[in-house]
Amino acid sequence: MKKVLRTILPAGFKANGVACGLKRSAKPDLALLYSDPAALACAKFTTNSIIAAPLIVSKKHLKSAGKIQAVLVNSGNANCFTGKAGINDAEASCSYLAAELKIAKSSILVNSTGIIGKRLDIAKIKQGIPKLVSGLSLFGIQRAEKAIMTTDTFPKEVSVSLKIGGKIVRLCGIAKGAGMIAPDMATMLCFIMTDARITKQALNKSLSAAVDKSFNCISVDGCMSTNDTVLVLANGTAGNNIISKGKGLQDFSEALGLVCLDLARMIVRDAEGATKFIQIDVCQADNFHEAKKIALNIANSALFKSAVFGENPNFGRVVAAVGASGFKIKESQLKIKLGSLKEKQVKLTVSLSRGKASATVYTSDLTPGYIKINAQYN
Amino acid sequence: MKKVLRTILPAGFKANGVACGLKRSAKPDLALLYSDPAALACAKFTTNSIIAAPLIVSKKHLKSAGKIQAVLVNSGNANCFTGKAGINDAEASCSYLAAELKIAKSSILVNSTGIIGKRLDIAKIKQGIPKLVSGLSLFGIQRAEKAIMTTDTFPKEVSVSLKIGGKIVRLCGIAKGAGMIAPDMATMLCFIMTDARITKQALNKSLSAAVDKSFNCISVDGCMSTNDTVLVLANGTAGNNIISKGKGLQDFSEALGLVCLDLARMIVRDAEGATKFIQIDVCQADNFHEAKKIALNIANSALFKSAVFGENPNFGRVVAAVGASGFKIKESQLKIKLGSLKEKQVKLTVSLSRGKASATVYTSDLTPGYIKINAQYN
Repeated sequence: MKKVLRTILPAGFKANGVACGLKRSAKPDLALLYSDPAALACAKFTTNSIIAAPLIVSKKHLKSAGKIQAVLVNSGNANCFTGKAGINDAEASCSYLAAELKIAKSSILVNSTGIIGKRLDIAKIKQGIPKLVSGLSLFGIQRAEKAIMTTDTFPKEVSVSLKIGGKIVRLCGIAKGAGMIAPDMATMLCFIMTDARITKQALNKSLSAAVDKSFNCISVDGCMSTNDTVLVLANGTAGNNIISKGKGLQDFSEALGLVCLDLARMIVRDAEGATKFIQIDVCQADNFHEAKKIALNIANSALFKSAVFGENPNFGRVVAAVGASGFKIKESQLKIKLGSLKEKQVKLTVSLSRGKASATVYTSDLTPGYIKINAQYN
Repeated sequence: MKKVLRTILPAGFKANGVACGLKRSAKPDLALLYSDPAALACAKFTTNSIIAAPLIVSKKHLKSAGKIQAVLVNSGNANCFTGKAGINDAEASCSYLAAELKIAKSSILVNSTGIIGKRLDIAKIKQGIPKLVSGLSLFGIQRAEKAIMTTDTFPKEVSVSLKIGGKIVRLCGIAKGAGMIAPDMATMLCFIMTDARITKQALNKSLSAAVDKSFNCISVDGCMSTNDTVLVLANGTAGNNIISKGKGLQDFSEALGLVCLDLARMIVRDAEGATKFIQIDVCQADNFHEAKKIALNIANSALFKSAVFGENPNFGRVVAAVGASGFKIKESQLKIKLGSLKEKQVKLTVSLSRGKASATVYTSDLTPGYIKINAQYN
């Protein structure tokens, strides 16, 4: 398996990104991912009980459609807390795109990221679609990456290629923040395209495992968005023997895991106002769930994150956060090792002295910059 | 029932506070509350699984002793994560005080607040005890209040008197912040003295109800301390018919509830770096538990708290926090009313349109001051 830089897309995929006017900055705000042939699709969505309109529509299409051919994403507006009208807007944007691409509406997924509680300007999206479609290209992924950004400071892409059963299989993933830099731009979106031939069951299993150890192991401020989505499209054009289990699935899962983990780390690196990238390893736990929950509890401690910002090696913050995690932990079992706080990368290791499981969580420090960014918006 | 300002203590109680040298600032750091006769005691402790040494000793004494005669509290050091030695130190401080007061060691409770993970300088406490005991006074409560402060900016006391069955009953409560202003000074301590005659069962029930709607309904940063304690001592010297149920218990519970709620609000007002006092009412919920959990989820949202600091009336933050609370809530059920953010007191009302229960939670805004305070310490 190797990482590929500035690759073209996996076979059969095209992408594009344009500015349609949703962002006042006139920056790109409308992205399209397209696959021919239509692709198998698996997705993980936010567990927030308030779900944005495009997710409601996308879930319906994922259920009814056999395969997915296009993914439309806008930034600048989350189309969330917009009621029935918001769902109609999401449906309408699918209809416009279906007509332009001459494909079934139900083979389109739609997503949005930006401000919560404001109607989407659907006329601007309609107007942008012809240019978006005509510009679709094998080389368009960089434009798509930029068009899904809200307050991210850099575009996020990871590409990997590997051999499965003698055939070259490629994966390309793109993601945006949880930059959360301006209010309600808290969304984490990730889209992964692959030309692998794989069964739906295997793809879903592989995605669940990858997300559990990547996007579910990062925390910027413990706030969960209404639009979070991780989507993988597999169009099978690599021509490999279909992946369902064994070494093929293992290799594919490793590659998908790498793409997700790299993108998740990029999101933490781009966290609002952050000056430190913090890796928290909890080891010698009874099981992965315990280790991860304890690590996330530390990652979400405002006191710990403030101390790291101040380069203040105070392990009392860690002790209190571990103890508050809900698991019975004896003081005598707890070993804490905090690396140098002078560096940009900080490593904390917490050993529980009672099992063999471990988990790694990534987070950033809490800084006056974070508050400034989230306070100043109107 | 009436609130009393600058009262003397309820009958039978004395208090004092001195500086014994634990704080480098030479400010008062050793407090004593004393009751003659010995008092019935009920306490609520932190649910953090890492528990400070004095709490381990106090729990033992509460179990074995019939009644409690003295409470010794030091600030400047939490005596937590100090292992067996820390427990010995807490035991030793009880022994010194028992000898000086000529009372049973098991009738003494002990508490500490300050830095986690450093041995307590027990010699300083030993040296301070004679002066602490000789200065015990009916008027000493202001000295005790100051001696339990860590980084609180003002002492916290509430006194109430009421008539129960024709007799005047008095309650006096003191507390120290979750100021959390310097690292590991995150502890919330509250001690309430009353001369009421009351059964243990009634006192415990009354305290549970009061704490549930006061100290358990405030959040500064969602971080739970290893030393949190709320203690009530009832020495029965008011001579009222013993309170066990009915109107007497109702009146006493109302008074205890008021003392706890006023002290809890003071703690929020004194929160580190805070510029706003935020009241969050969640109403029309199915039950109190649901309403409170949703309110606390909003209170713990760094995004919401940053927005309030910036006087940025962005209800999208509230929507996302409500949805992330773990309860199924339909968008159409949710009504949000956010009062003016220009004031020092901010009120947020969230209606769930599905039941009759409600809860009120108090919190503060998240400010660069909070981070500065928690980052700069060594």
